[in-house]
Amino acid sequence: MATSLETQHPVKAIGWAARDPSGVFAPIKFSRRATGEHDVQFRVLYCGICHSEVHLAKNEWGGTMYPLIPGHEIVGVVTEVGNKVQKFKPGDKVAVGCLVGSCRECGECKKNEESYCPKGVLSINGRDYDGTVTYGGFSNLMVTNEDFILRWPESLPLDKGAPLLCAGITTYSPLRRFGLDKPGVNVGVVGLGGIGHLTVKFAKALGCRVTVISTSPRKKKEAIETFGADEFLVSHDQEQMQAAQATLDGIIDTVSATHSLQPLLSLLKPHCSLILVGLPSKLEVPVFPLIMGGRAVVGTASGGIKQTQEMLEFSAKHNILPDVEIVPMDYVNTALERLEKNDVKYRFVIDVGNSLKDE
Amino acid sequence: MATSLETQHPVKAIGWAARDPSGVFAPIKFSRRATGEHDVQFRVLYCGICHSEVHLAKNEWGGTMYPLIPGHEIVGVVTEVGNKVQKFKPGDKVAVGCLVGSCRECGECKKNEESYCPKGVLSINGRDYDGTVTYGGFSNLMVTNEDFILRWPESLPLDKGAPLLCAGITTYSPLRRFGLDKPGVNVGVVGLGGIGHLTVKFAKALGCRVTVISTSPRKKKEAIETFGADEFLVSHDQEQMQAAQATLDGIIDTVSATHSLQPLLSLLKPHCSLILVGLPSKLEVPVFPLIMGGRAVVGTASGGIKQTQEMLEFSAKHNILPDVEIVPMDYVNTALERLEKNDVKYRFVIDVGNSLKDE
Repeated sequence: MATSLETQHPVKAIGWAARDPSGVFAPIKFSRRATGEHDVQFRVLYCGICHSEVHLAKNEWGGTMYPLIPGHEIVGVVTEVGNKVQKFKPGDKVAVGCLVGSCRECGECKKNEESYCPKGVLSINGRDYDGTVTYGGFSNLMVTNEDFILRWPESLPLDKGAPLLCAGITTYSPLRRFGLDKPGVNVGVVGLGGIGHLTVKFAKALGCRVTVISTSPRKKKEAIETFGADEFLVSHDQEQMQAAQATLDGIIDTVSATHSLQPLLSLLKPHCSLILVGLPSKLEVPVFPLIMGGRAVVGTASGGIKQTQEMLEFSAKHNILPDVEIVPMDYVNTALERLEKNDVKYRFVIDVGNSLKDE
Repeated sequence: MATSLETQHPVKAIGWAARDPSGVFAPIKFSRRATGEHDVQFRVLYCGICHSEVHLAKNEWGGTMYPLIPGHEIVGVVTEVGNKVQKFKPGDKVAVGCLVGSCRECGECKKNEESYCPKGVLSINGRDYDGTVTYGGFSNLMVTNEDFILRWPESLPLDKGAPLLCAGITTYSPLRRFGLDKPGVNVGVVGLGGIGHLTVKFAKALGCRVTVISTSPRKKKEAIETFGADEFLVSHDQEQMQAAQATLDGIIDTVSATHSLQPLLSLLKPHCSLILVGLPSKLEVPVFPLIMGGRAVVGTASGGIKQTQEMLEFSAKHNILPDVEIVPMDYVNTALERLEKNDVKYRFVIDVGNSLKDE
């Protein structure tokens, strides 16, 4: 396996991989394909760590193909482009998010909604069109079709900006899709973690009034003073929750653990949506508040390439950046342990460029 | 209690009521208000029985105010109108559905979505603006504000048409709201009961392609040959369900019992909705198919008065009628027992006019 991984493609690469469901990461040698005529090869400088990587490393969702080289919030500098690539050149700052391929023919692709393409190829633990497994940004080098390469805005920091590529677009996309993107709109945000704090920042920049809903009263100060939320509700404070009934135009629910939706649904105005962006495996939905209010529980999976580019430019313009902790590559095992305990404010970013060594 | 019920209003009325959670019905004498200047008084001729009446009679949802006089699919003939009523006159055929009042000021009322008005008054077991409890069509007489009176289309049979007032609008409304109302659209219908068989009829009349999804293979013939469905899927036939993945533009789920949503959600195209019109108290929602497909689980509560009128006219034009069994008033206890076992094709209608006697 190790041999085939190193030789299946012509370009040598190094990274860190989990090799079994223990989820422990260690260095790995593998290979990348030669730069095809529509490909962009780039050196990875920074890569964010997403909570989904904890689940994948431990095969908690099933289907993990080991060795797993994760990382789908990838920022770097172009080293080589294929001879038909016109949009990028060596030296350009670029990025890759969750997707590295899609069919380009289905209704979703035609609507620039590649993240919903049934044949889409995920950046990690995906099956590429040549049959090989996709490996992500916990590595020194990426080779990706130009249509899935994002241009990095000049004013956006390469390190802090990395988590925008998954956490950012995951919340920016539903804010746009559900019209939660203008003054006069009241947006609820459940959970003030990696995605949650970015949701507050985006929704405020879009002009919304933002209410954070959290189990922890101690998060109030940060929600309001640091991130600019307008209101803060403690979800088990029945008086507060009662007073806020039917006031919100939409809720972005970022919580990954199973939790009760009943009190959250009551906060929504009629015909409004509770939008799930976290990934609890199952949730119990109370039917009465859905039916009586014509309300919806909706899922949303990231956004398409065009919208991701728009989100990066919006972030650069409005100076929206996640709060991050920059760590070296060999800190990844500790980082994933801390992530599992939500012990990070608010996202980890690996300094791949300066710390990934050929060992 | 019996005395106050008989004397709280000046107009004598008779009906059948459940008096406690045994849910057993017996004759009752009560009273109706005098016809106010904006009221329409009408003699009840026919009244459908809705499954929710089983739950209410037995206080299964909590909150039943006994004595309960149900019936919210009410058809009759005007006997008297208030002096400011211009739209109706004695002798007109009229109807009342789920609603007899709303605030008229909120956003929902202004959008003709009175069924979502937080201050709306239900036709049965509701609290009217004068503080008295609302009583429905298991009675000889109704007095209702003119704005909640529907005009009965001349060509629509009074008896068979009654269930349109709840079962009909409950499915017509989401078909319209979610754009499941035109050729080229594939609609799924889960459950072939009272609401389900009407959903097939409406969706076909609107030009959709209709797939019925049922646990009972024996319903296939009726679904296709009698009601005109195009396809029939047995929900536990994995091969059939697999082949139909991501083919539907929306699903109307009419099942009142708790059931698995996972296989149903997989039938939806991305960004499409599973629309709940049945009332299981809770449902477990699998999050992955929601998120990966950007899909929604949505509730819907009937429709507004304007849309209900439109639905009646649509039904008259396209000859859409539920399949019903007409029964006398004193059959109501047996009818509710049979309804609980789904032993009816497909709705009961009480011949109130000919069978309700002052005993």
